[in-house]
Amino acid sequence: MITVITGIGELTTNDEELGQISDAAVVIDGDRIAWVGPAVRAPAADARVDLDGRAVLPGWVDSHTHLVFAGDRTEEFATRMAGKPYTAGGIAVTVAATRAATDAELSDVLRRHVAEAISQGTTYLETKTGYGLTVADELRSARLAAAHVDEVTFLGAHLVPPGWAADDYVDLVRGEMLDTVAPHVGWADVFCETGAFDEDQSRAILTAARRRGLGLRVHGNQLGFGPGVRLAVELGAASVDHCTYLTPSDVDALAGSATVATLLPACDLSTRQPLPPARTLLDAGATVALASNCNPGSSYTTSMAYCVATAVLQMQLTVAEAVRAATLGGARALRRDTGAGAIGLLRPGSRADLHVLDAPSATHLAYRPGVPLTHSVWQHGIRVR
Amino acid sequence: MITVITGIGELTTNDEELGQISDAAVVIDGDRIAWVGPAVRAPAADARVDLDGRAVLPGWVDSHTHLVFAGDRTEEFATRMAGKPYTAGGIAVTVAATRAATDAELSDVLRRHVAEAISQGTTYLETKTGYGLTVADELRSARLAAAHVDEVTFLGAHLVPPGWAADDYVDLVRGEMLDTVAPHVGWADVFCETGAFDEDQSRAILTAARRRGLGLRVHGNQLGFGPGVRLAVELGAASVDHCTYLTPSDVDALAGSATVATLLPACDLSTRQPLPPARTLLDAGATVALASNCNPGSSYTTSMAYCVATAVLQMQLTVAEAVRAATLGGARALRRDTGAGAIGLLRPGSRADLHVLDAPSATHLAYRPGVPLTHSVWQHGIRVR
Repeated sequence: MITVITGIGELTTNDEELGQISDAAVVIDGDRIAWVGPAVRAPAADARVDLDGRAVLPGWVDSHTHLVFAGDRTEEFATRMAGKPYTAGGIAVTVAATRAATDAELSDVLRRHVAEAISQGTTYLETKTGYGLTVADELRSARLAAAHVDEVTFLGAHLVPPGWAADDYVDLVRGEMLDTVAPHVGWADVFCETGAFDEDQSRAILTAARRRGLGLRVHGNQLGFGPGVRLAVELGAASVDHCTYLTPSDVDALAGSATVATLLPACDLSTRQPLPPARTLLDAGATVALASNCNPGSSYTTSMAYCVATAVLQMQLTVAEAVRAATLGGARALRRDTGAGAIGLLRPGSRADLHVLDAPSATHLAYRPGVPLTHSVWQHGIRVR
Repeated sequence: MITVITGIGELTTNDEELGQISDAAVVIDGDRIAWVGPAVRAPAADARVDLDGRAVLPGWVDSHTHLVFAGDRTEEFATRMAGKPYTAGGIAVTVAATRAATDAELSDVLRRHVAEAISQGTTYLETKTGYGLTVADELRSARLAAAHVDEVTFLGAHLVPPGWAADDYVDLVRGEMLDTVAPHVGWADVFCETGAFDEDQSRAILTAARRRGLGLRVHGNQLGFGPGVRLAVELGAASVDHCTYLTPSDVDALAGSATVATLLPACDLSTRQPLPPARTLLDAGATVALASNCNPGSSYTTSMAYCVATAVLQMQLTVAEAVRAATLGGARALRRDTGAGAIGLLRPGSRADLHVLDAPSATHLAYRPGVPLTHSVWQHGIRVR
């Protein structure tokens, strides 16, 4: 089945040669893009969809979420908005609720949030374990996540759970827990921050994970300056996430590496942190991704459009830069941006994941903040909304 | 026809005695609220709707928009995001496009944006003329607006159009233009700002409008400190809108008056201005409204939820304060907050305008920024979405 989608007023391809195309068409063959170009030159197809001038971009790649959770932290949020600082201590509340939940309850939370994300144009999702923090609960989280999202990250090192000495817990995470969970995940992540895991503990866990063949990610530099970025670059992590507090040498290290700086502006706003130095990172030559960090504590949103609007309105990115960060940037942070079936870009051979806007231009994502602009969504070549 | 809406997890009434009610019900009789209280005590009705624990609040009252326009200013927005300062000069672009549009085209723009607003929970809308700036074009704008929104404001004094000496244009506005437009509107407004109309010009127009029986509104203190707030309070205006730059004496004047401070945070973000001092105003005892300022130049959003989330996350309002400002605050800015058929609150006798959220609490409006949370909307007692 070959479908031509035509009448695309503005097509963002993220491909260096194709660039942005006006009055464009895209041809989908199965789950892949077969052709991209000006509508007047589109080849014949079995079916035809006319978008009447709407803008099309690659589906959002949300490369950082925590969707295996139970419970709600509305009260903690309200208290924070009344002035109480964010400390990450609330993670323990979600850990307790998650452990107490049934598999069916956790699957229902996953299913609802994935559906909510897709309905807003997200077509590729990473999610993390990290609210289990026992061998059995982390395994369960990984297995349930794998049934609902595209990429699963092991985050046993989210927090030292109550009742544990930190070094004993690190030994568990890099030993039995890693051995048990690794077959079910592609990535390992550590929350490298004061109050969570220090540099040596983080390195010990990440190197053990690398030996198991997992790709590496790091939560770093969220609540203050610290070793997270340096460590991520040293270990060749695919991404270091948050990057709210960066020194000039952190920026240089990122710019000189293949490690993506994944920025989570909705989290920074929700925890009343400064917004990360996105402009500085791009100007230095670093690769930037934008992600939602959807979780019930520090950033309970699935809206990538909100992250893009915030990046443009308040972080001095152009719309093109912000859209690229939320699509190709996320794909690069997951090492899925090249080869056959690549995501985050629209060119022949890439996965047919399209986000159609009820607007003539992607600029409307920042020009019209908060307005739900998703018209339709194609995932794997199938219209899913 | 009497309908009971039950299963309301959290009901925000904005009524001082009723407050916020858990496990609530609302009874609608025709276009009015007939009863509000705990679900277990709800009276019998002809029909019953169960909301399964969802939160309900009064529909948004968007008390400041500019929806009679044609054309698009996407390019100007993109240029501004690339660093060019906002000067209000772009208004002339919309004036030219609006004059050139047919009635049918302007009605279509109105219809689409009103529908978009309703679909996000807005149940009461003010809009302004001000992109006509000739007697005939202002009259046309007022008539078309009156067919689509609840309240129309005459804003002939939006900008001195090209080719006019300022004082000659002021004479036109307060003379023939006012005489012609006044029968079709309830309000008059002046853009009292450097580069638009100065204090004396603004006073001349507003006093003429008051003599014609119109209520007064002022655009003031948007781009810098200025006389707008002082003048609005002096003349007993219902509202002074923007209030981005306020001196302590401006805050005192507002706190000691019945003039509402209408804040437009989406506009401030979109023009890279500071956010207005909402916390200071509330702490001083002023009445605050939040509105979208939807217009194609400085704030092209219909999303009141975005304004509320911004007010909570970035302007230090509690969710209760922000929701109140976007409902009852807007109603007060339009002098529709009291008596039979009052809007912006839910109590016996008020207009049956309800916003149902796909969330258990109104807190989710800020806890989940960007996520479309509108489940259903009732306007005049009829479900419209």
